[in-house]
Amino acid sequence: MAVYALTVAYKGTRYSGWQVQKNAPSVQSAVQDAVERVFGTRLGVTGCSRTDSGVHALAYVCHIETEKEIQPEKLCLALNMHLPRDISVLEARVEEDGFHARYSALGKEYLYVIRNSRVRDPFAEGGVYQYPFHVDENLASKLGKAFVGKHDFGAFMSAGSKITDTVRTVYYFDVRREGDYLLISTAADGFLYNMVRIMVGTLLKACKGSLDITAALNTPDRGLAGPTAPAEGLYLKKVFYSKKELEERINNFEE
Amino acid sequence: MAVYALTVAYKGTRYSGWQVQKNAPSVQSAVQDAVERVFGTRLGVTGCSRTDSGVHALAYVCHIETEKEIQPEKLCLALNMHLPRDISVLEARVEEDGFHARYSALGKEYLYVIRNSRVRDPFAEGGVYQYPFHVDENLASKLGKAFVGKHDFGAFMSAGSKITDTVRTVYYFDVRREGDYLLISTAADGFLYNMVRIMVGTLLKACKGSLDITAALNTPDRGLAGPTAPAEGLYLKKVFYSKKELEERINNFEE
Repeated sequence: MAVYALTVAYKGTRYSGWQVQKNAPSVQSAVQDAVERVFGTRLGVTGCSRTDSGVHALAYVCHIETEKEIQPEKLCLALNMHLPRDISVLEARVEEDGFHARYSALGKEYLYVIRNSRVRDPFAEGGVYQYPFHVDENLASKLGKAFVGKHDFGAFMSAGSKITDTVRTVYYFDVRREGDYLLISTAADGFLYNMVRIMVGTLLKACKGSLDITAALNTPDRGLAGPTAPAEGLYLKKVFYSKKELEERINNFEE
Repeated sequence: MAVYALTVAYKGTRYSGWQVQKNAPSVQSAVQDAVERVFGTRLGVTGCSRTDSGVHALAYVCHIETEKEIQPEKLCLALNMHLPRDISVLEARVEEDGFHARYSALGKEYLYVIRNSRVRDPFAEGGVYQYPFHVDENLASKLGKAFVGKHDFGAFMSAGSKITDTVRTVYYFDVRREGDYLLISTAADGFLYNMVRIMVGTLLKACKGSLDITAALNTPDRGLAGPTAPAEGLYLKKVFYSKKELEERINNFEE
């Protein structure tokens, strides 16, 4: 018996998200199909999280348990032969028994990409939030620091979630500009349904001076936070399974 | 009467190239449609070059002549309102009478992007040449220098061109690696039909040791050069109209 962790990149545009759904293409079912082709039998593919329709992943992690063992590099290449062009397995590695893509995760980092220009980039289509109003990145960076720490993020969760404990710890919330692009990186021990997108929508409104981030924290009132930024700018960037790796990344942003 | 130069970025995947063609979508006709919507009359849109089907542009230049004058920044925004999402006008500027997008050009720079990995990048789809065999970038850089200078590039031209003078001056041919990507930048006073793509195909074959670039130069024998690399990796990056700007760029690569 072997447990393999797969690191998967995908462009989410064509998909209803990670999770298998009736009558809608999902990344999970595409990966399950590829796994079935390679192993000759249908295996469960367990993901690290649901992702929303249209959300992308630079390094999603899922795991499979199998009787048949395949050398990890060969498994990676074999899976890619059976995957569509908008999904790639970047790495396959053998994990210890008991590894679970979701429950073993200590935290996740998301990247949100805003094209802050009145002119579209034809090559960024479907992969950015086109936001025409100029954002002062120093102000955004300063205001965004309010998210960092342990807070009740109840106001930063979309309706439809069954979760009742809405306290999360945000490890960092970093905003930087690269030309016409604003790159927002944030990690937490966990994120609520649509939390990153609502944080971004809230930040943009706060930058306009029409909202106070701190007033929206530690309340359950969704109305105090800003709108949900579009899915197309959001990328799951990193899932942390090593405490050391997570701490190094946090320190990196604190310097 | 005013002459406007438009700098246009486009993802070429959906198009048969720049040039208007019967029964096939072209970038030129999309731009002409947008110009017609903005000026209320059909105007000629003159491009700096044909580009092949599937080839992209980061900064293609075309010009229009018009009686009606519009403030350049407003013209840029108005055109973008009428363009599809894979074409953007990055800049509109007023040019002197007599400016011609093609005949005023002193040279052009192309970028060719190779993803040098066995694993696809889901976000690069249609915008790179996926090349799985490892390329030593130092060797490629060294071999590619053979292209620089004034040569007869007759062997680097696809059949179907009516051009008889096949002598061109290549100003630079630069190869660098960024992770799994190889970026090739080359500029010349002009390029023959498919010349950059044949140069890239030739370079890759030379890196394998199965072809000698210098033997293919100054002959008309297409068979001595390598295959034509795919269109999807090619980007028109810069059209030079200023001698100073071109010289600075050349010096930049010589250092």
